[in-house]
Amino acid sequence: MSTEQIMLQGILNGERRWLSKAITLVESKKQEHRDQADILLSRIIPYTGKSMRVGVTGVPGAGKSTLIETLGLYAISQGKKVAVLAIDPSSAVNKGSILGDKTRMEHLAHHPMAFIRPSPSSGHLGGVANATFEAMLLCEAAGYDYILIETVGVGQSEILVSEITDVFLFLKLTGAGDELQGIKRGIMEMVDVIFINKINEENLKTGRNTCAELLRALQFLPQKTMGWKTEILLGSALENTGIEELYHTLDRFFQHIKTSGQLELHRGKQSEKRFLHWVKQYLLEGVLSHPKYHGIFQEKLIKAKETSVNPSSAARSWVREVLEGED
Amino acid sequence: MSTEQIMLQGILNGERRWLSKAITLVESKKQEHRDQADILLSRIIPYTGKSMRVGVTGVPGAGKSTLIETLGLYAISQGKKVAVLAIDPSSAVNKGSILGDKTRMEHLAHHPMAFIRPSPSSGHLGGVANATFEAMLLCEAAGYDYILIETVGVGQSEILVSEITDVFLFLKLTGAGDELQGIKRGIMEMVDVIFINKINEENLKTGRNTCAELLRALQFLPQKTMGWKTEILLGSALENTGIEELYHTLDRFFQHIKTSGQLELHRGKQSEKRFLHWVKQYLLEGVLSHPKYHGIFQEKLIKAKETSVNPSSAARSWVREVLEGED
Repeated sequence: MSTEQIMLQGILNGERRWLSKAITLVESKKQEHRDQADILLSRIIPYTGKSMRVGVTGVPGAGKSTLIETLGLYAISQGKKVAVLAIDPSSAVNKGSILGDKTRMEHLAHHPMAFIRPSPSSGHLGGVANATFEAMLLCEAAGYDYILIETVGVGQSEILVSEITDVFLFLKLTGAGDELQGIKRGIMEMVDVIFINKINEENLKTGRNTCAELLRALQFLPQKTMGWKTEILLGSALENTGIEELYHTLDRFFQHIKTSGQLELHRGKQSEKRFLHWVKQYLLEGVLSHPKYHGIFQEKLIKAKETSVNPSSAARSWVREVLEGED
Repeated sequence: MSTEQIMLQGILNGERRWLSKAITLVESKKQEHRDQADILLSRIIPYTGKSMRVGVTGVPGAGKSTLIETLGLYAISQGKKVAVLAIDPSSAVNKGSILGDKTRMEHLAHHPMAFIRPSPSSGHLGGVANATFEAMLLCEAAGYDYILIETVGVGQSEILVSEITDVFLFLKLTGAGDELQGIKRGIMEMVDVIFINKINEENLKTGRNTCAELLRALQFLPQKTMGWKTEILLGSALENTGIEELYHTLDRFFQHIKTSGQLELHRGKQSEKRFLHWVKQYLLEGVLSHPKYHGIFQEKLIKAKETSVNPSSAARSWVREVLEGED
């Protein structure tokens, strides 16, 4: 049996060891690994697509890890197998946060029905989203049917996550006034469900005000999903309140896009985007590995480092040479 | 005179109207605009490179706009011409924040020595960084020699900004305990100067504690720039305290990387990255516009939307067809 065949069998049997190895494979940037990854992924595709893919975002300190743990454990109690992946662009520079990650999601991490994988440290921009997308497919093939993808901060990473998930959950804290400060319209327009976290008896009233303010702001925004208004819930991940309701709200949203056909459309667009990414990547690699161009490209690359050259004009003239030379 | 020639003259004369038009041109995704942009940029390159390029980041609410205004006005008082650009990935979905942007940087916005340009709403990932990089070159040609690039949040956008700036300034708030919660190692490793903002008499002590804690954390991180330890300052952008010191610290850092040759090296790497981006983009466009492939590509794209196909394998086999067909 080929390595890919053994790996495929291991994944389909739900063996964590093989799942982990396969994820490392799709994260790799080595040419030979990518060759293997493509073989493996094309075989695994028939076993994918059945899970619910949830993106979870919120500013640092909003309680994402705690929520993912509590929500994940609840999903398990409902008969799901839960995988947690992370898109953490800051780890593109160096792995992990300053505060130890080991204590995060302690209960979920040790649960036999859960699989937790930290963020790939792949350097590129689109690279992290691609690796996470492929890791997700592998998890689905291994039988995980509830996939939570965590992301950090407000910005680009949310766009990446929304490009690979079905449902978008936004964690919010409540405080005195200024509730919308720092929430960008862009984020609000991506969100399907908002969970106002760390709510207890003391700050319940403030929480309700935040909720009302968010609802007012949402009125002025276009609807993201036909037939669905962004829902806002209050609760506490730490004290396990509001989690059951959250789970069922997410599920209700998922069923809605599934039956209305929006899920299929959405995932189709995502696939198209992945495809385009890889076409670009493989075109570049293909041209570069051609003996006719390899040497010239190295020269051009050295020249591009001279800041007296405009990068896009230099790229344009070189690509023209390549394509005209091929005719 | 050609349009590019008129534009070039207008920019070199420091006419805002032409600068704005040129930035709109480089932000455009239309083929004909890109053609013009490349001509313009290659002519403008000799007039670029003389400014100090400062990236400014911090979580929402850290006071970035106020700081940029105060710092910008101080730079003007030192004889600089100041341009402010923004990389705001959330505006890739929709422009602007919920809270009005019109009241931001009111004094700077109306100053004859300043030019403020909001974030491009270009949809791609790398696209925003590229457009901002080119907008920066245009500003330099128009005589702006102090360029502030603002970015939002903690994550991908910081990597984008660090790919086009020389100096990286991080704005931090102080508070009770948990100072490092949410600050990712990745960010800390990118930063040259930290400004703890919103410091007044009342919270000065807490501010100093934050400072000490950050310094401790920095000890464990590798040095980003040879011969420079990340400096931490305290102040208040709103009350205009610590700004003068901040300006001169940033300047000191800039002079250090300039004289040590690190600036040239750094900018060279940035140029190389831009070049690679455009090679990929133009290769794709070149192949797609070829009559032989255009039709087939459309078919492949439709097929890629079927989620029963693995995007990367589909891309690989198509690229192989193209490159082998060309041989």
